Amino acid sequence: MRVDGTPYRSIWLDAGGTVTIVDQTLLPFEFATRPLHALDDAAEAIAAMRVRGAPLIGATAAYGLCLALRDDPSDAALDAACERLLATRPTAVNLRWALDDMRGQLRGRPPDERVQAAYARAAAICEEDVAMNRAIGAHALGLFEKHWKEKGGKGRLNVLTHCNAGWLATVDWGTALSPVFQASDAGLPVHVWVDETRPRNQGAALTAWELRSHGVPHTVIVDNAGGHLMQRGEVDLCIVGTDRTTAAGDVCNKIGTYLKALAAHDNGVPFYVALPGPTIDWSLDDGRDIPIEERAADEVTTLRGVGEDGSVGNFRITPEGSGAANHAFDVTPRRLVTALVTERGVCAANRGELEGLYPEMSDRG
Amino acid sequence: MRVDGTPYRSIWLDAGGTVTIVDQTLLPFEFATRPLHALDDAAEAIAAMRVRGAPLIGATAAYGLCLALRDDPSDAALDAACERLLATRPTAVNLRWALDDMRGQLRGRPPDERVQAAYARAAAICEEDVAMNRAIGAHALGLFEKHWKEKGGKGRLNVLTHCNAGWLATVDWGTALSPVFQASDAGLPVHVWVDETRPRNQGAALTAWELRSHGVPHTVIVDNAGGHLMQRGEVDLCIVGTDRTTAAGDVCNKIGTYLKALAAHDNGVPFYVALPGPTIDWSLDDGRDIPIEERAADEVTTLRGVGEDGSVGNFRITPEGSGAANHAFDVTPRRLVTALVTERGVCAANRGELEGLYPEMSDRG
Repeated sequence: MRVDGTPYRSIWLDAGGTVTIVDQTLLPFEFATRPLHALDDAAEAIAAMRVRGAPLIGATAAYGLCLALRDDPSDAALDAACERLLATRPTAVNLRWALDDMRGQLRGRPPDERVQAAYARAAAICEEDVAMNRAIGAHALGLFEKHWKEKGGKGRLNVLTHCNAGWLATVDWGTALSPVFQASDAGLPVHVWVDETRPRNQGAALTAWELRSHGVPHTVIVDNAGGHLMQRGEVDLCIVGTDRTTAAGDVCNKIGTYLKALAAHDNGVPFYVALPGPTIDWSLDDGRDIPIEERAADEVTTLRGVGEDGSVGNFRITPEGSGAANHAFDVTPRRLVTALVTERGVCAANRGELEGLYPEMSDRG
Repeated sequence: MRVDGTPYRSIWLDAGGTVTIVDQTLLPFEFATRPLHALDDAAEAIAAMRVRGAPLIGATAAYGLCLALRDDPSDAALDAACERLLATRPTAVNLRWALDDMRGQLRGRPPDERVQAAYARAAAICEEDVAMNRAIGAHALGLFEKHWKEKGGKGRLNVLTHCNAGWLATVDWGTALSPVFQASDAGLPVHVWVDETRPRNQGAALTAWELRSHGVPHTVIVDNAGGHLMQRGEVDLCIVGTDRTTAAGDVCNKIGTYLKALAAHDNGVPFYVALPGPTIDWSLDDGRDIPIEERAADEVTTLRGVGEDGSVGNFRITPEGSGAANHAFDVTPRRLVTALVTERGVCAANRGELEGLYPEMSDRG
């Protein structure tokens, strides 16, 4: 996607085999890229969350392995690099998947062929992610166009999203934001209501920054506001990403998603979920069985911002002595989901329709 | 209510006719009281929002008039003081009500009796507010006790509230928090989930501070979290205040209230609204007819907090160039309200039951 007119991805290969990322820890207050020269740089970038988002973590790990093999293509170095990268974010599923995939393809080759093969496979992992997200966007764009036509093509198409499911979380396009970028590029007058998404403010920080940088009209709102906007007819559709969706269509996503889905249902506003196939958990039907991560209280009690003197820092917003709870996700029951949008197409949120899109999965779970 | 063991009101009369307030602009990071020696001090305290909350603004204006008359009890001074105070917050209904009430009682008296009469009436206005809030709390406490019994008296009674309807918004007790303080004082093991209430964070700042200071167990949560907590059975009841309730029972309150009411309804959690009779708008039935104030975008894009160096200041949390919208209130339709709790008792959210409690109003609207 574009940053003030220049096309970027969240990770890319430079001449000479160096990899470059957007340093997301500086966003939205500063935009800077950062070269990764060696395995250490890649591991640090993942651990320090300079890159985040499951697909991008996987891609960064894949390139991290390339950088390691450039220094030493031996079996021992390959294994050590995998271990090193895996330890950066122990629970990230895509990280393990990307490393297992890379190692599987490289172990059988002689060491002197590994560097080239690794770069080729890492590039393919990135392209696969981009293609999947582009396809999600194309399918969702069809829904956007349908709602735009139903609205009579007047004013603007108002889309509400929660959290960040944009290009910064993937290699390019994002999931829920992919149709937004495609609609904007196609000249559809899309406008996005950006939920700020407390506590970590991925909406106010990352989604708003992505949209501003690409030139998509948008307005930041507090998480409390979406219901009122829907009551007043100011939202034409909602679209969000997901961290895990059950085979029956229950959607686990950033805390607060459920409240927006309730309001959408109460006001007849379509509520869509954009998801790549790999985020479907075929082993689960009932979303209530998904364990919900509880994170540190200081994500609620402190925030990152720019002070009056222009410096970026953390500040506390609660009284000393008041504790906080921090549940990271909630589950939106399938009855509140209008449709799921995958790279293979659009379907209702139920096992039958999902299995129709992924027939190879229908004997699992 | 208590502040670390010492009883306080939000405004009180000192020996010698000086009035003292809690300076709410410093909360929750600093607790300080502030004397009001003259009309100028009272007007400044209201305009600078050192006092806020409709009942407290009215009480401060009443005492401001006392301070003015102490310097000059003439008709001209009385009228000038009323104009001066009225201009501090032009849209505050209680401000006009208190000033009209005071002026009506004072104009007929000879100037040399006015100061004493003014202090007596200002004190009565404060006592009426306290009595009304105490009564709301007593009625709601009955509901708390019922739910506690239904729960089998095990664990704790989990109450969720949104925004600040506590003693700082009134002279004492508050409205929605009145039963919480009374339950706590009565030994009921109440625990409050405090919605932080973006954008102005009255929950994280004022409600959390009130509860901590009085010694009531509580946990601050982001506004996104309440739905998940209700899904998991962690909320026994919700109670909120209201800025305006229609005669048919639609409730206008801080933005985001509607989302919590939806979640309560979806999960079978009782949703109560605490309100003094004067906040009922007998001229309206449909809450959609209530105009919703749109406030400045910088309340969304910047927050007040304590920086890493301990200094209190404002911080920007959004990218430069991203706009924000700031709707201050939303309307919760009566179908989502379990009951209204007034100073005269508990009733269903409909015109018939409200008129039963306020028969003198049944020929109006």
